[in-house]
This record gives sequence, structure tokens and C-alpha cells, in this order.
Amino acid sequence: MSVVQAASSLQLCRIMRPDDANIVGNVHGGTILKMIEEAGCIVGTRHCNTQDGDRCMAALVRVEKTEFLFPVFIGEVAHVTAEITYTSTHSLEVQVQVMSENILTGVKKLANKAALWYVPCSLKNVDKIMDVPPIKYASADQEELGRKRYGAQKMERQETKARIEDVVPPPPNPEDPPKGQHTVGFSQSSLIHLVGPSDCTIHNYVHGGVTMKLMDEVAGIVAARHCRTNIVTASVEAINFHRKIIKGCVVTVTGRLTFASNKSMEIEVFVDASSLMEAGKEKYRAVSAFFTYISLDKANKALPVPPLKIDGEEEKRRFEEGNARYLQSKAKRLAEKERQE
Amino acid sequence: MSVVQAASSLQLCRIMRPDDANIVGNVHGGTILKMIEEAGCIVGTRHCNTQDGDRCMAALVRVEKTEFLFPVFIGEVAHVTAEITYTSTHSLEVQVQVMSENILTGVKKLANKAALWYVPCSLKNVDKIMDVPPIKYASADQEELGRKRYGAQKMERQETKARIEDVVPPPPNPEDPPKGQHTVGFSQSSLIHLVGPSDCTIHNYVHGGVTMKLMDEVAGIVAARHCRTNIVTASVEAINFHRKIIKGCVVTVTGRLTFASNKSMEIEVFVDASSLMEAGKEKYRAVSAFFTYISLDKANKALPVPPLKIDGEEEKRRFEEGNARYLQSKAKRLAEKERQE
Amino acid sequence: MSVVQAASSLQLCRIMRPDDANIVGNVHGGTILKMIEEAGCIVGTRHCNTQDGDRCMAALVRVEKTEFLFPVFIGEVAHVTAEITYTSTHSLEVQVQVMSENILTGVKKLANKAALWYVPCSLKNVDKIMDVPPIKYASADQEELGRKRYGAQKMERQETKARIEDVVPPPPNPEDPPKGQHTVGFSQSSLIHLVGPSDCTIHNYVHGGVTMKLMDEVAGIVAARHCRTNIVTASVEAINFHRKIIKGCVVTVTGRLTFASNKSMEIEVFVDASSLMEAGKEKYRAVSAFFTYISLDKANKALPVPPLKIDGEEEKRRFEEGNARYLQSKAKRLAEKERQE
Repeated sequence: MSVVQAASSLQLCRIMRPDDANIVGNVHGGTILKMIEEAGCIVGTRHCNTQDGDRCMAALVRVEKTEFLFPVFIGEVAHVTAEITYTSTHSLEVQVQVMSENILTGVKKLANKAALWYVPCSLKNVDKIMDVPPIKYASADQEELGRKRYGAQKMERQETKARIEDVVPPPPNPEDPPKGQHTVGFSQSSLIHLVGPSDCTIHNYVHGGVTMKLMDEVAGIVAARHCRTNIVTASVEAINFHRKIIKGCVVTVTGRLTFASNKSMEIEVFVDASSLMEAGKEKYRAVSAFFTYISLDKANKALPVPPLKIDGEEEKRRFEEGNARYLQSKAKRLAEKERQE
Repeated sequence: MSVVQAASSLQLCRIMRPDDANIVGNVHGGTILKMIEEAGCIVGTRHCNTQDGDRCMAALVRVEKTEFLFPVFIGEVAHVTAEITYTSTHSLEVQVQVMSENILTGVKKLANKAALWYVPCSLKNVDKIMDVPPIKYASADQEELGRKRYGAQKMERQETKARIEDVVPPPPNPEDPPKGQHTVGFSQSSLIHLVGPSDCTIHNYVHGGVTMKLMDEVAGIVAARHCRTNIVTASVEAINFHRKIIKGCVVTVTGRLTFASNKSMEIEVFVDASSLMEAGKEKYRAVSAFFTYISLDKANKALPVPPLKIDGEEEKRRFEEGNARYLQSKAKRLAEKERQE
Repeated sequence: MSVVQAASSLQLCRIMRPDDANIVGNVHGGTILKMIEEAGCIVGTRHCNTQDGDRCMAALVRVEKTEFLFPVFIGEVAHVTAEITYTSTHSLEVQVQVMSENILTGVKKLANKAALWYVPCSLKNVDKIMDVPPIKYASADQEELGRKRYGAQKMERQETKARIEDVVPPPPNPEDPPKGQHTVGFSQSSLIHLVGPSDCTIHNYVHGGVTMKLMDEVAGIVAARHCRTNIVTASVEAINFHRKIIKGCVVTVTGRLTFASNKSMEIEVFVDASSLMEAGKEKYRAVSAFFTYISLDKANKALPVPPLKIDGEEEKRRFEEGNARYLQSKAKRLAEKERQE
């Protein structure tokens, strides 16, 4: 019995417990995202420390768009496999696959596939980005494909970074006065969380997976308020982690509906962090992302989603942008399907 | 109390999970108390750091009597709203309200209202109490009412402090020889808990909410052992936190029945702390409080409580004191009801 | 990237968090035991469901003596590898190995090796033991060695079962009157735990790993009270799980020192379960076991253990039995060492 695992890959698994799931037994998307990120963080940190120089920790900077292909249930075992698939000078890509296994029936399903980008931060000085040791590729083609993915994500990260720094978005609207059902204001939700020790890496920064789990929790509340049914995470648009969150911070996570089609809803989620102690330091936007949810009946079949009531120019603009993302995803899915046929 | 998020107010929400509740799905009173205290601690700490001088942490010193108005269930969202409602030179009052929301039906209920008192402790020297920046009151009347509440709680805190220091209560009675059912000894219960990192503030003192959750856990076991039914927390008498508990301590929490009416039971709970590492330091009484529980059938209707079998002078005295508290509460509730009609 | 794992083996890993460890950063033995048992339960349940007939769950019936070879620390990754190594008609043996990996330095250490025995219980009727599908052995020798281990553990299980049923042990001694330092009564400790949903398998029985974690928690408190130093689990004698514990039970876990040598302490731990709801059902002894702890200084070097003050015939008898176990272990270790040289 040996524990041989290549330095650049990792397997991780866990039984899904009641607290991992909603009341009908569907495991939260956030639970899966957290496991994915834990695997990525381990494999990335391990790889970046195979060289001399400062010890470092792989910090999550981006998660590519992720689709939840099959729901996972309480009592099933989720297997997460992570592998480093590309390295640039200062960042690395980890591809992760999640299989759910029903250990009573033996049925296995591909639940999720994701790609994450990490950057190695020195433990001595968290602002110092270390070099990433190169991996070996199976073929020149593999490397070339990786280089393309790297270029594409880099451009997108820079773009959203500029956008965030230009326009600091206004704080979300308060809940009162009470809004009518199916409006944006009606389902908008916020939670706050005081960052604790188990949320953090050994240099006291919040794990990206912890943040994503909180984001999914808020998005789920928004979706359930809108539909009043069993809702599950269908996909998450690419998430860029621009700014780190440290132990002792208070995190405010806010979600609001931007768009609803007949079969799905899109929820925009903002994560704002602020230090409890340092009054001088302002609240800052750490992350934002779009989550797509669907509504399910008791047999796990998709239910129609109530139309979203739009009010004002701002909500209209966001709705149209959401619609564009929706149509783009749909076109992409169709193209892929055709290609496979 | 509106939900505009001034520095002196805060909202927090969370979906209630299976581990937050008992096996019939009623969320533990202790879960609610812990959320209430987390909100109070955040809003208090944030407020006290809006000034120059040492950074500080709001430490809980007192919770006023609290009633659980409606049970909360797994899958519901608990919304906690906290607002600073009075400031003295060295302490502040936070009023907290808990609404439960069934996100499937949209039904919202007021589950709990509480008032907590905090004192800002310097992070550099935990025994140094900092000044509290004054808040602005909506009216002179508001301020005057706050001053009265402040005076009343201060007197009571001093009184209980004197009582505790005068009489160090004897260790609770042992469990053996086996006691007959419905006696005090039969249901008396103790737990010990090793204080861990997630139980603590960033200066390594146990959150008041963590202590209250442990107290409610023991009280619930005592009540269930007496009734052998589904029991829920109905109210908690004012709790004074005289002494802090630090990381690395072992906490012993003991509960015993003091009084039972036809419809409710009163359980006295003691929290004793002792350092595992420091030999010189004795075990000390950190907190004590009275919890009232009721017994519910499957439709959440109140069930009769078995009479408590009293044995000896000491138990008799405690029973009579419990009865006096019971009658006083009852009279107060009736008076309020009449006033409202 | 494939997730190929033989049906009869499994790997599981996780970053160690602050909540998994004591205040000096040593991961609790109980955390490791819980991970070991989770791996065993998954691999055992999966294997027993590769046949027709009722779906079933592998229930832990025994853990062989286990030694903690190297301490694991916060921030390290614990890798657990489990493999089915023997099957009888109605039970199976799982051998588990725990490697700790420091992902900053790349150093890996063997932290623990364990062997667990499981029995498949039908989900329809938990008292019905299912057949176990046979595994293939690498050689006839392998099978023969397995058969010997099977025979040995079976005999020991029957023996302890008879002992438990013959002599229902008295409830542990109470804490008062206060005992002098370094006596048995001084450090004796009890905790109670209300079994929650996350503690249980999908047929609502407590995971063996959850029980072992509670046992280690109490044993650690006893050891720390005796030594007032940093203490860690050194080994656990074989544990037999004779009776199941169901959701909704209250579990009382009690630990007391039985023996101390110059370098180690032995703590006997009892687990008693009782149903909160069902009045007829008595409290029953579910498990008992012996944990050995050592005391460490800041450099993780062994410290001398204060001698145990013995009082009365009963304590003397237990001390001598503990001493016999201690000498036997020591002789066995020496014999193994010689054999290896």
C-alpha cells in the first residue's frame, strides 16, 4: 500500500454530511467549490515550494467559469482530483474534477470540472510574488493550449481589475421600504461573517474556497426567496480575486438578482471586507461574481422560474447584460454539442 | 430600528443547518444566542475603534433577560439586526432583534429580542477599559430611557458580583448514587469543553456567545432528561459575565433543575473555568444563569411538565426562589398584556 | 486526469486547521482517528455493496492497537490511504496509513498505521449482518496471515464482550470531595455530547470515528490536568465497539488515569449512551478503551510525567494492570527492534 502521488497532482475525498446540503439533501455548490479550492491550494503550494528561496503559499487569483453537471447528495462521497496543467513565470493553472460516488449503488457521476489560477506569495512578505517552477508537458500542443488559456485569463483579469478600481460600486440598497415579490429588492440578501482561524491559511489570509462558499450561501438565499422552491447552483462565471482578506476582518456578502430566464436566474454577489479594528481603513471590494441557479421539483426536474420584475434604468441595464451572458453561454453549449455529434 | 447600516448598526443572517437544531428540527436557543452575541460584538468593536488610542475589542459583560417568542426551524434564514442604543463612558448597550424567515413561504416571525452590554478592552492590555465614543440619540427622551436602563443593569451587576465573591458555591452534587426519576439529581448534567481557536476573539478570550451556547446545551439536556420529550428554550434570565475565559482553558458547564411549574422548568447553569497549563490557578466560577424550558408535542403545542421531586432544605430553598421568579415573570407578562389592551 | 481507484482502496487528504489541533499546534490524535475511520467506512461500505441484496453500511466493530509515530501540525496535509486487506464471511479488515506532508518543505512522515474491522449492516434492518464479498489476495501467504489476524481479533472481541456483559462497571467516581493533585480523582473528567446529524451515518448511527474523537478529547483533558504541559496521544489500545449509538442519544464520555510511568500515562475512557426520549431504555456502556499520552516540552521532547498517587485497592489493581500492559508493549517494541537489526 503506497501513497505515491505525483507532486503535481492530488486526490481528496469526503463523505457529504447533512450540514453540507440544503433541506432536500442537495449538496450546496459552495461546499463543492470549497473542496475544489482546498485541492488546488494544496497542489499549488506543494509545487511552488519544490524550489529554493522563500517558502510560499499559493493564493487563489481566479476561478474559470464552472458548471455543476450533476447534483451531489448527502451520504455520497465527493472525489476531487487536482492537477497542475500550466505554469507561467508567476502563476499556475490547476484543473480540478469532482466525481460523486454513491457507495451504496456504485454509481459515479462527473459533478463538476473547474480550472483555477494561483500565484505563489512569500510567507515572509505576502506582497512578494515568487517564481513558479515549470512543469513538463505531455506534448508541445498541451503547452501551447495552456499558453492560450493563460493569455486569455490574464487579459480578463486585468480588465476586471481596471473596472473595479475605476468605479467603486455603491453599497447595496437597503431592504426597506419593503419591495414587491419578484422584484430585485425583494430577494436581495446580505450576510456578514467574522473571519475566524479555521477560515485562514497559515499566513492568516482567508482561503478562496471559504469566500466562495459564503458567496454561494447568499446566492442560494436570493434564489430561494425569488422562487420559493428547491434551488441549486447551476454554474458560476469566472471569479477574480483581486484583494486578499485577512483574519479579524468582517466580510459582508451581498447578492442580488440581475437576470432571470424561464429556466434560470443569475445572481450577482459582492464581497466587501473591512477591518474591525482599523477605523482608518475603508471597506473594500474583495471579490464579485455571477452565480446561476435553477429551480427543481421533488424529482429533481427543472421548474420554471418566476419572471424578474425590473425597476429603473440601472436594473434594466444589468438585466440586459445578464441576458447577453445567458445567450452567449447557450450558444457556446450548442456549439459544443454540435461539435461532439 | 431601521436597517440603514450606520457604523452603529448591523445586519447578519444565516441559513439554519441541521447541526443548529435538535432532532425534531427546532433550532437550539443557544444557536440564536450565539448569533446575537456575534452581531453585538461586531457592532460594539467597530464603534469603539472609531476613536484614537489603543485598538480594542468589545467584551460582553451582561445580557438582559431574553424571551424566545417563536421557534426557528432548519432551512429558515435567521436575520439578526443589532444597533447601539446607549453609551456610557465605559460601556455600551446593543439591542438585537432576530427575525426568522421561511424563504419558501415568505413568512417572517419575530423570534427573539435581546439587549447586551459591552465594555471595550484594550488589545494591548486586556484589563484596561477604554472610553466609549458617544452616540447621537434621536431624542432627549431616548437618551434618558437609556440612562435608566444603564443605571438599573449597573446596580444588578454589582449586586451579583458581590454575591458571587461572597459565597463561592459548592461544587454541584455528584450523579451517584443513582437518583429516582424526576428528582434534581436524576437530570443534573455536566459537560466539559476545551476552549479552541474558533471559540475565541482575536485576543484569545472566549466569545460570550460561545459560553451561552454551551450553557443552553447543558440546560437542554437537563430538560430533556426530566421530560423525555421535545424541549425548547423559552427564556433566559439576565446573565452577568464577571470573569473572562481564555484560550486553553477547560470549561465545565453544569445544569440542574431548580423549579418546575405545570408548564415550564427552570434550570440553573454554572460555568467554571480552569487553566490546563497553569498549576497555581484555581478553578473559578465564570458565569451562572437561569434558563427556562418548555416541553412541546409534535404539533409544537405545550405539554405538561412532570413535577419536580424535591429532596432536602437546599433544594427546597432553590425551588421557592425559582417559584418567586416564575410568579414575577408571570405578573410582568400579564401587566404588559393589560397595558397593550 | 482520471480518478481510477480500485474498489478496495481509497485515498483521502485534508489540510490540518487550527480547530484540529491544541494550542501549541499539535493535531489531536482524535482528529487523525476520525479521518482514519472515515476512510475505512467509505472503502468498507463501497466494497460490501458490490453484490446483490440489501444495501448496507460498514459499521466499525474494532480498531487494533494504534501508535502515533510522529506528531502532525497545523498547516500540514494529512494523507490517509485505506485498503481492504482481509475478508471473512461477515467482516472485513481495512489497513490504513496516515502520512503527514509539510507542503512548504516537502517533508513527509509516517504519522500513523491502523487496522480496523467492519461488519456490513443492512440499511433495511440494522441488526441483519450481510455477507462480505471476498477479495483477491496477492498470495496464499497474505490470505493465511489475514486469517490469523481475523482469528485473533475475534477471540479478543468475544472475550471483552463477555467481560462487559458480566460486570456492568459502576459509574465513575464523582469529583467531590476535592482530590489532591496527581491523584486519580484530581484529573478525572467527563463530557457529555448530544449526538447531532453530522455525527451520524445515513442510517443515523454514530460514526465510530466521532466516538473515538470524543474519547481522545476527554483523555487529553485528563492528561493535561495531570501534567499541566503540552500532551499528545502516543497510542491507543485495541477498541471494541460492542453497541451502537443512535442519533438523539446523549453520550457521556469519562476518562481517568489508571497508570503512569516516568514517561507516559495510561487513561481509561468509558463511553456511556442513553436515549433522551425513550424513558424505558437504560444508560448503557457503548465502548471503553485505554489511551496512552506523553508530555512534551516546547521542542517536542518528552518530559517526565508526575507520579500517579494511588488510593485504595481498586486504584491499585488498575495501576498494576496498566503496568502490565506497559511492560508488555515495551517488550514487544524491543523484540521488534531486535528483529529489524
